[in-house]
Amino acid sequence: MNFSSKLLEQAVAEFGRLPGVGQKTALRLVLHLLKQPQPEFSRFTESLNMLKQQIRYCQVCFNLSDLETCGICGSSKRDRGLICVVEDTRDVMAIENTNQYQGVYHVLGGLISPMDGIGPGDLNIEELVERVRNGGVEEVILALSATMEGDTTIFYLYKKLREFGVRVSTIARGIAFGGELEYVDEVTLARSIATRVPYERHIA
Amino acid sequence: MNFSSKLLEQAVAEFGRLPGVGQKTALRLVLHLLKQPQPEFSRFTESLNMLKQQIRYCQVCFNLSDLETCGICGSSKRDRGLICVVEDTRDVMAIENTNQYQGVYHVLGGLISPMDGIGPGDLNIEELVERVRNGGVEEVILALSATMEGDTTIFYLYKKLREFGVRVSTIARGIAFGGELEYVDEVTLARSIATRVPYERHIA
Repeated sequence: MNFSSKLLEQAVAEFGRLPGVGQKTALRLVLHLLKQPQPEFSRFTESLNMLKQQIRYCQVCFNLSDLETCGICGSSKRDRGLICVVEDTRDVMAIENTNQYQGVYHVLGGLISPMDGIGPGDLNIEELVERVRNGGVEEVILALSATMEGDTTIFYLYKKLREFGVRVSTIARGIAFGGELEYVDEVTLARSIATRVPYERHIA
Repeated sequence: MNFSSKLLEQAVAEFGRLPGVGQKTALRLVLHLLKQPQPEFSRFTESLNMLKQQIRYCQVCFNLSDLETCGICGSSKRDRGLICVVEDTRDVMAIENTNQYQGVYHVLGGLISPMDGIGPGDLNIEELVERVRNGGVEEVILALSATMEGDTTIFYLYKKLREFGVRVSTIARGIAFGGELEYVDEVTLARSIATRVPYERHIA
């Protein structure tokens, strides 16, 4: 692109580094911001700066939090005997949006991925083991992605946790609600038959 | 969405106000930025702040510029007798990318749009008339969008400029290169037949 301004070019380059944002989109976003009055513009950059400076990770579950302990870990209504292990904050939000889960969380901060150079030591795994070792935990739910990295991480965590006599479960994999059989891939379909559930549990 | 942090929620809300960015995309972008090391993060917000504080509009053509006069208006290689009128900076970049145009520009900063409350007084039209009035301009090319607003603006500018005896032209509308006839809309097709060009000009 032929930029008439170096400043504009730099800002567009920065936006273009964001995931899923190409040069043309970056330009549109930057020009949109530039058109905003100063107060709106400052609110944009300030909200980012404040977030970066003040955000912390909950000291218990490592979820993003404004306080030392996040609202979920601090709540008296949540069941501390049930820990749901997730990859990142977005997964916590997705599960919270279901309004069904009453336990607490543990955010790993990623998945084991030798290809990307991410080993167990780079994740909040020791802290999870520590929580389980301290007792009071009945079940650990591994709610990780159904990918190679997710499966690797699940296997690693399972080996780490089983010595504590805690129940370790994974979330069910199968056909999504509304999913039509003919469009489901073979692996999912085969697994969903192998892990079929008695009808009494289905309607429970 | 259930945010675990007010700071995160605010930053996502700000990103979500950008055009074409929904809540989920905003969250992904904010979390991506948050993961960046401090230097990269600062570079992002700083590039925006610098742009907002230091950018100016070229005093001749109103294109975005780092200097009082933009590189195009300041260049001795450009033909000042030929002014291409466009809506905004992006159009200048698009035309510059063709590497074919050797004249100068005039950026209106928008199009006349009574529906959005934008009248001629909100655009850099008086300044264009002034440039033409000062003499030395042979032709004004109106390179505006083929929309209702574009056509309204073209008509308004034509009426304003014709008294100065300057040539006023619009860019050709027709079938795009690579376009197949059967997929072209009727209005474009009808116009492209009505404004057909002699074959000698076609190959020129």
